[in-house]
Amino acid sequence: MAQLLSTTCSIRTPDRRTSFRNPQYTSLSFAGSQCMPKSFVKQSRKRSVIFRKSNISAIATPVKESELQNKSSDRSSRRPKRAMVIGGDGYCGWATALHLSNRGYEVAVVDNLVRRLFDNQLGISSLTPISSIQDRLRCWKQLTGKTISLFVGDICDFEFLSEAFKAFEPEAVVHFGEQRSAPYSMIDRGRAVYTQHNNVIGTLNVLFAMKEYAPECHLVKLGTMGEYGTPNIDIEEGYITITHNGRTDTLPFPKQASSFYHLSKVHDSNNIAFTCKAWGLSATDLNQGVVYGVRTEETAMHEDLVNRFDYDAVYGTALNRFCVQAAVGHPLTVYGKGGQTRGYLDIRDTVQCVEIAIANPASPGEFRVFNQFTEQFSVNELAEAVTKAGEKLGLEVRTISVPNPRVEAEEHYYNAKHTKLIELGLKPHLLSDSLLDSLLNFTMKFSDRVDKEQIMPTVSWKKIGVKPRTVVAEASR
Amino acid sequence: MAQLLSTTCSIRTPDRRTSFRNPQYTSLSFAGSQCMPKSFVKQSRKRSVIFRKSNISAIATPVKESELQNKSSDRSSRRPKRAMVIGGDGYCGWATALHLSNRGYEVAVVDNLVRRLFDNQLGISSLTPISSIQDRLRCWKQLTGKTISLFVGDICDFEFLSEAFKAFEPEAVVHFGEQRSAPYSMIDRGRAVYTQHNNVIGTLNVLFAMKEYAPECHLVKLGTMGEYGTPNIDIEEGYITITHNGRTDTLPFPKQASSFYHLSKVHDSNNIAFTCKAWGLSATDLNQGVVYGVRTEETAMHEDLVNRFDYDAVYGTALNRFCVQAAVGHPLTVYGKGGQTRGYLDIRDTVQCVEIAIANPASPGEFRVFNQFTEQFSVNELAEAVTKAGEKLGLEVRTISVPNPRVEAEEHYYNAKHTKLIELGLKPHLLSDSLLDSLLNFTMKFSDRVDKEQIMPTVSWKKIGVKPRTVVAEASR
Repeated sequence: MAQLLSTTCSIRTPDRRTSFRNPQYTSLSFAGSQCMPKSFVKQSRKRSVIFRKSNISAIATPVKESELQNKSSDRSSRRPKRAMVIGGDGYCGWATALHLSNRGYEVAVVDNLVRRLFDNQLGISSLTPISSIQDRLRCWKQLTGKTISLFVGDICDFEFLSEAFKAFEPEAVVHFGEQRSAPYSMIDRGRAVYTQHNNVIGTLNVLFAMKEYAPECHLVKLGTMGEYGTPNIDIEEGYITITHNGRTDTLPFPKQASSFYHLSKVHDSNNIAFTCKAWGLSATDLNQGVVYGVRTEETAMHEDLVNRFDYDAVYGTALNRFCVQAAVGHPLTVYGKGGQTRGYLDIRDTVQCVEIAIANPASPGEFRVFNQFTEQFSVNELAEAVTKAGEKLGLEVRTISVPNPRVEAEEHYYNAKHTKLIELGLKPHLLSDSLLDSLLNFTMKFSDRVDKEQIMPTVSWKKIGVKPRTVVAEASR
Repeated sequence: MAQLLSTTCSIRTPDRRTSFRNPQYTSLSFAGSQCMPKSFVKQSRKRSVIFRKSNISAIATPVKESELQNKSSDRSSRRPKRAMVIGGDGYCGWATALHLSNRGYEVAVVDNLVRRLFDNQLGISSLTPISSIQDRLRCWKQLTGKTISLFVGDICDFEFLSEAFKAFEPEAVVHFGEQRSAPYSMIDRGRAVYTQHNNVIGTLNVLFAMKEYAPECHLVKLGTMGEYGTPNIDIEEGYITITHNGRTDTLPFPKQASSFYHLSKVHDSNNIAFTCKAWGLSATDLNQGVVYGVRTEETAMHEDLVNRFDYDAVYGTALNRFCVQAAVGHPLTVYGKGGQTRGYLDIRDTVQCVEIAIANPASPGEFRVFNQFTEQFSVNELAEAVTKAGEKLGLEVRTISVPNPRVEAEEHYYNAKHTKLIELGLKPHLLSDSLLDSLLNFTMKFSDRVDKEQIMPTVSWKKIGVKPRTVVAEASR
């Protein structure tokens, strides 16, 4: 995986006041283009290839002089205006970038696009056809008149990240830019090491960039409910007050993560907490549950804005995968006993939660933790819900239990608090029959794109080895 | 620091049954050499240089055929015999390697020797002159007839580590092989990233090597008491039983580390705990306090076995540094109010504790945590003790308070449990007047080697920046 670490397109913009207008840097105006007639799509893809070949290092949208001046005066207002979305080409990141742009934030996407490479390497692909990030942003500009800047590069490359910070001057950084699959991190030693290196060092670089270039910036970092594991006590939001031998303190809630991916998020949380204390940074850790759904208000606006939808055994997650299985007549695959209970949320709530966190920033020096989910379900409960919804649509839905590839409790107590985002105004989209209907209809619409070979679990927590594992795609489509 | 990560001398030994006897691999017999007359030292140093130039990748001592056969039958006995000491050229590692060898273990030192490079780069050096690792091992062989194998390479290079595991077949791995200075990790961004990468990835590699090549091997990992921080409740040994909202569970003790170094140890602990659970590895995490002293039974046997003794602001620690300051008439430098309280132990107890942990291994699947220290002191208490001891020896000892370069509580509750090693047989060497006398006499003996420019703190927790910091050595000696 070493090549991934150095796969970086650096933007070389020494000063934001000149960067976007300096002819030595590439910028693309989307203002004059039409939103994606097919011929344009083809043409633009060709142009993307040319950009890469000619070693142009980043694509950034132009910023008008008047906007630049406005930014300086914005500094005095309290509500942040400029939000950098790291990992803004991914499942949650893309939906969030559009949502923030739609809500009036000036948005920059920072992404190395490596998630698309993983699809290629693993021989998997999104249920939905997704456009290139460049086409996505052009379409968004055409539809709404809103510009989202794009910085293509790897945050593990501090030189690149520095230039992005100096050019964009973020007031909030939303950090989705991590390898986010537990199974991926358990494929082989190389990918375990890649996941921890990429996530931990990338986040360290973000913290250093904030300290150096934007000390008042608010970090909104995506963590995971999986950091807590499944303790036999109620899970609090980040901290727990413990009375022990007659003394009391409020301490970080103990973590028991169960994959190298989940562990990387625990490492991040500890690193961020330290920098808030030592340097006075402000940060919100969003310990997110399992996200389901695909359509948000913005991604539903045009086919070139459609979000990715993963159903494979590496990147797919429980409810989304069940809906695909039901749509193509594959039995729902419950791992083990199916009593595994987790927090879940609709992707429309992911984007809402992030915006709430940005609009209500943590204080300087504060490391704030929100548990970001809306409901708890066991895997068996999800399978039952999908079965019922499928039958209403005339689908024949079966469930099978497959050996659990993970190491986890399959029957356990689980009660996690999640009130802080509600208190700040979150209006949850709870899992309903109508949502399941629409999700099933959505997956049925794309059922001819499903590769059934990708559904069954292929990654074992116990069998992970030291040799690079080459996942060969079956030519089944 | 990137070059450090790839500074590796790989040993290429495909099978331990042939490795040491295969003429394509270098081995050095120490049996016939005399213990270090000066001319020999010079000669051997020259030979070391030649080895490097001719790109010979490792130096390993030969193992006799009869020994190889014995090893196989050893497998049946319960007490481990082969102990690999990663980081065996460092302060605690060297003393431990000799102690284990003296106690009848077959020992291999695995080290990339990078700690010696840091001395050069930072312009610092041990108070004591230390011999090369090769000369150290030759001397040990000559004095005792005992062979310690040497594998020179970087455990972040998994190919190197694999070969070392396959060649030596450890039954216990003692892992000191980490960047172990909190100030070093706070010098600049590069060194912060280096510390976390080196420590976390190196340990991940050790865990994978154990799983693949030595699943019954017991990992004895050096952690630090600094992982816990200074909570307002008693610190337990690794775990705490919490009753919360009417339910009870025993969970990992909450961690609040306060440097990128200390954080790296927290990350390690979490990673190791997971692999014990998922893969059934057995591990003991030794959360060690601050170590003082220099002489152990073995390092005192010959001047070529003398241990390093760090007094500089980057690698020196409180009590050792105070003794050097007293010896050269430099005021004792108390950081801030001096109420910072920590656990301390004599280096003779470090080696004892490690041996106790090896001789009483954790069970398969168990992640065991021992707090490894013998007494608690505040910095002010240590300064007072050194002042008293110095005055008895006719030294004039002053204490000054210097601005605290760290971010830490300077007055706080501190009560950490440390009974588990005592229960297993640890006989502590408590800090006594006589020990302080001998430590002061020791430092006075080497006082002409002290570079006073290295004593005052130079690394600030708050001022750490993103640019590489070049520490220029003063030509003051």
